[in-house]
Amino acid sequence: MEYRIGTGFDIHRLEEGRKLIIGGVQIPFEKGFKAHSDGDIFFHALTDALLGAIGYGDIGQLFPDSDKKWEGADSSIFLKEASRIVKEKGYEIVNIDCYILLERPKLLPFREKIIENTANILQIDKNRIFIKGKSYEKLGEIGRSEAGSAHVVV
Amino acid sequence: MEYRIGTGFDIHRLEEGRKLIIGGVQIPFEKGFKAHSDGDIFFHALTDALLGAIGYGDIGQLFPDSDKKWEGADSSIFLKEASRIVKEKGYEIVNIDCYILLERPKLLPFREKIIENTANILQIDKNRIFIKGKSYEKLGEIGRSEAGSAHVVV
Amino acid sequence: MEYRIGTGFDIHRLEEGRKLIIGGVQIPFEKGFKAHSDGDIFFHALTDALLGAIGYGDIGQLFPDSDKKWEGADSSIFLKEASRIVKEKGYEIVNIDCYILLERPKLLPFREKIIENTANILQIDKNRIFIKGKSYEKLGEIGRSEAGSAHVVV
Ligand SMILES: [Mg+2]
Ligand SMILES: [Mg+2]
Ligand SMILES: [Mg+2]
Repeated sequence: MEYRIGTGFDIHRLEEGRKLIIGGVQIPFEKGFKAHSDGDIFFHALTDALLGAIGYGDIGQLFPDSDKKWEGADSSIFLKEASRIVKEKGYEIVNIDCYILLERPKLLPFREKIIENTANILQIDKNRIFIKGKSYEKLGEIGRSEAGSAHVVV
Repeated sequence: MEYRIGTGFDIHRLEEGRKLIIGGVQIPFEKGFKAHSDGDIFFHALTDALLGAIGYGDIGQLFPDSDKKWEGADSSIFLKEASRIVKEKGYEIVNIDCYILLERPKLLPFREKIIENTANILQIDKNRIFIKGKSYEKLGEIGRSEAGSAHVVV
Repeated sequence: MEYRIGTGFDIHRLEEGRKLIIGGVQIPFEKGFKAHSDGDIFFHALTDALLGAIGYGDIGQLFPDSDKKWEGADSSIFLKEASRIVKEKGYEIVNIDCYILLERPKLLPFREKIIENTANILQIDKNRIFIKGKSYEKLGEIGRSEAGSAHVVV
């Protein structure tokens, strides 16, 4: 079996009155991602990277945000479906790496739990998944804590 | 033969009175990419990713925008040349994944044609190429439809 | 041995009165990266990509910028340590590709030296490392030469 590569990206605005959810973990913060679903930028970017690696489709096409069905949806549903498709097509995940651009809060205290959630959904070993948070040095909307983005390779 | 990895990026401003060309497809829109060549961000980023993976050079070095020769050039020329070099060095392309950050218009209706064009130029199977469009959530210049970017891995 | 993938990113503000250091090369320019260490965005992003590929940790965790020890530090120290860990865990580096977003100055004249420095630190062949500079088309802070970023895949 050959090695394929995939890349995924997601960005959402941060606003008050929303829960901040990354990798299925609810992170205490005064803002959360504005989105049709739960706004989980890591699960969205990872779903796109997995589906892109096998050339199957993308998250906006499979789970359109115009569909009432996905309103407030738990994004693990999208990731689970991507994982099912990857396996069905005969592929296995070797490893996942990701950086999250988020000015605040720090991601490190939640990393272990995010990796654990992801490993459970994908049914792969935890040591095949990594995620790191990076500051955007107070530049632009991300730097002003008005948005956050996820950048994934698989 | 070992597996090598490459990454490419391109960004151009959108302005009125230019054709919007992505992956060799002319997409109906009121603006197009401002560039010395035809401004095809996908072909530019892909050319850089292929040349970077084999450590050969980059698009700005091989096809300088100070050269009259490339004024208004069809960017498939750059991609064709990158493909020729990759083959000459004894490498084969396994797969390509990409996301395009473009607020409008949606890329999905043009995806099949973009993939077909790319497959023809590179002489590889269509299922080895994937491309997805993403919104930048109305943030910054990309979000205001003043620019668009391409992010490629190979 | 399986092939793993990693991705790293770094961004710093440019300000007057600092040296501009990329890949261990001091580049003549009127500004340099503001950082706790020497602000070498390429070595920082590469360190993160290598550590992320093997799922070990990240640069902020291993070399916290709250630690006096790393004040003004030569970032080759971080890269050397990442390289040591990668080898200790039984991995080898196949290749590295990178793009640097920097409006000015052009990176090309310094590329050979950056690649040489990196090859020496990692003790791998120069043809396994590539780096290219890209303009951000005068957009945002990067386009105004107020910041620069590095985007690495391994
Ligand atoms: Mg999303
Ligand atoms: Mg271009
Ligand atoms: Mg840094």
